[in-house]
Amino acid sequence: MPKVRANLNVKVWIYKDSMKIGLLGCGTIGYGVYELIASKRYPSSSNLELVKALVKTPEEITMDFMTNNPDDILENDEIETVVEVMGGIHPAYEFISKAMKKGKNIVTANKAVVAAYFDEFVDLAMDNHVKFRYEASVGGGIPWINSLRQAQRIDNITSVSGIMNGTTNYILSTMESEKIDFDICLKSAQQKGYAEANPAADIDGIDIRNKLVISSSLAFSSYIKGDVIPTKGIRNISIMDIEYFASIGKSVRLYADARLENGCFACRIEPTLFDGTSPEASIYMNNNIFSLYGETIGELKFIGQGAGRYPTANAIVQDILDIIAGDRYFGREIFSEHPACNHDILKGKYYVRAGGNTEKVLEALKPFSPSKIPCLSFDAYVTSEAVSVDIHEALKEFDDVFFARI
Amino acid sequence: MPKVRANLNVKVWIYKDSMKIGLLGCGTIGYGVYELIASKRYPSSSNLELVKALVKTPEEITMDFMTNNPDDILENDEIETVVEVMGGIHPAYEFISKAMKKGKNIVTANKAVVAAYFDEFVDLAMDNHVKFRYEASVGGGIPWINSLRQAQRIDNITSVSGIMNGTTNYILSTMESEKIDFDICLKSAQQKGYAEANPAADIDGIDIRNKLVISSSLAFSSYIKGDVIPTKGIRNISIMDIEYFASIGKSVRLYADARLENGCFACRIEPTLFDGTSPEASIYMNNNIFSLYGETIGELKFIGQGAGRYPTANAIVQDILDIIAGDRYFGREIFSEHPACNHDILKGKYYVRAGGNTEKVLEALKPFSPSKIPCLSFDAYVTSEAVSVDIHEALKEFDDVFFARI
Repeated sequence: MPKVRANLNVKVWIYKDSMKIGLLGCGTIGYGVYELIASKRYPSSSNLELVKALVKTPEEITMDFMTNNPDDILENDEIETVVEVMGGIHPAYEFISKAMKKGKNIVTANKAVVAAYFDEFVDLAMDNHVKFRYEASVGGGIPWINSLRQAQRIDNITSVSGIMNGTTNYILSTMESEKIDFDICLKSAQQKGYAEANPAADIDGIDIRNKLVISSSLAFSSYIKGDVIPTKGIRNISIMDIEYFASIGKSVRLYADARLENGCFACRIEPTLFDGTSPEASIYMNNNIFSLYGETIGELKFIGQGAGRYPTANAIVQDILDIIAGDRYFGREIFSEHPACNHDILKGKYYVRAGGNTEKVLEALKPFSPSKIPCLSFDAYVTSEAVSVDIHEALKEFDDVFFARI
Repeated sequence: MPKVRANLNVKVWIYKDSMKIGLLGCGTIGYGVYELIASKRYPSSSNLELVKALVKTPEEITMDFMTNNPDDILENDEIETVVEVMGGIHPAYEFISKAMKKGKNIVTANKAVVAAYFDEFVDLAMDNHVKFRYEASVGGGIPWINSLRQAQRIDNITSVSGIMNGTTNYILSTMESEKIDFDICLKSAQQKGYAEANPAADIDGIDIRNKLVISSSLAFSSYIKGDVIPTKGIRNISIMDIEYFASIGKSVRLYADARLENGCFACRIEPTLFDGTSPEASIYMNNNIFSLYGETIGELKFIGQGAGRYPTANAIVQDILDIIAGDRYFGREIFSEHPACNHDILKGKYYVRAGGNTEKVLEALKPFSPSKIPCLSFDAYVTSEAVSVDIHEALKEFDDVFFARI
């Protein structure tokens, strides 16, 4: 403990060594949280107690502490911290809001609801003097949010980016290594539990966009909404594309990218080519990589499992331990500054496979001087350097076109 | 702030928003710390004040706060935290010890002194109720020590490893990309400031060993001394080796490796081959990569600049901010458990280039059934699976042999 001297600015912090917890959701992640807390493997000084856990129906109540009435948690004065792992936006939004108004801290793994209501939750937490923590919502067990918060205490962060979605990375890296086409690969991902029955949120880039919203909002101290982010998923990719990329020593990954320049930001989500010798190309299966660039720290990259029961549950328990420890965040108060969006910041050359309507695609690409890639059995083009959002706009009406930044 | 309830275990923590700092050493890193503090770019809530800085001679005193008398810092009651960035073991050891006995926190970037006196410093910090922090001693600005501390709050860490030395990585990756031999590469590294005039500590593996001592001691809650770690550097590598590795799709890196198994640990430092598609092979120039494996978190990897003025100064200021924030570490108290060393845990097959004395080398390798690699213009062998320390022992008398784990 640092010595306290009479002539210095001294404050008193009252803290506890224990935490009473309510759990909203008892699925894969929720059960993992229960297991980690019950296992008591974390140091005994942190006395975590699971008071109540919300399940969906009376039939699912198999243990004493389970309930299907959310108010048993939200209205329970004993509970100090609510862990929200239900997923989805409603009623998660209503439950989180109510819990904070009732003076409870929130720890959540729910990227969709955080991305949709980030600014509201931050304000609610301040107004009600509670903590709002969301490490588990981005990157599972990778200490990404915490590292952003830490870097931001000293540095100006000017860039965040990464392979932030395990499902699409599993599909792309498996297509590459097994030389199989998209549909077969998606089915295998679904069978193995890496993709959901309805895979749209992953393969159309919604999930990764939510993670970029959270990461860039935190990094740039401004709530950046998902709807300003040009987003292209991997639905239209074909083994033909992958084979061509391999022939030029490249790997394709679904990549999220946000940059701050002269007080303005820009973001994009799109398939992106990486040199075979880059860290990004070395990310296989459902792994993730996150990068940040800070003015004094330089570039830092973080690799790990971006999802899964125990990594995500681990991140949740870490957040709870930080709340117990006081969570005295020294970063800029988030959302206190408001940079504007300037799409011109993010540019690139693009690979475009035309799909069934070459003529119309070429017409749309005219401003970007497309040149045909020779010696391919299909129609594909490379554009000149373009503002990324312009490429997204030009090609958005074509359902069967695939494009990737080179 | 979590609500405090009357029926719970409540403690009071007295903290301050400011810190008065003494700086031991005003070289590259020390000046970076001064600049970061003077720049006031970190949030104003953390009021850092540099009271005194130690330089070597009266001639170096160019600013008011400089002194060449260490007691102006060590005996100065106003100073609460001492930042030690002198390097070397003596008098750094004496200064650190004296400062802690005088009730001052220590933040250090000096891996040599921490590796040599880790247990003593931890005890001294506890006895004197001060903080002892050393993030900057390993991996520059990469938040590696902090991530280990955090992971350890919940997880059993069973492995730490990495490319922990930028100088050797600069040499190896440059030999590979530029196809030039060791001596030329070392000279270029010295000219560019990546290697010191006397490069022994880097190229013989002493620097990376110090970092493995610190990382594994923290991860395994036991002080692991450097002298139990089999250590092979890169002094004997030749462009012939690099070219052979490239021909089989591999890159060589100087790699540190520590594992915990059934309550015992083992460590090793040696040139190690990585597949061209691995994250380790993607680490170029003076970058570092650190890996940990935790039972619930899985594998995490951290990439960044492992040295340099601003990344290292950044890590030092982060440590100071953590001390101000209370640094309420929830991990196992380090060195409370004492696993024994069991070298048998770490095994591998080895590439061995015989150097000038093939017959004697083959004799020494007999227990490991060496088989000659065909079609090379020099004598090189691959061993059967062996306990790593046995290979190190068998080959330690040969000054010109190069070996690497496959």
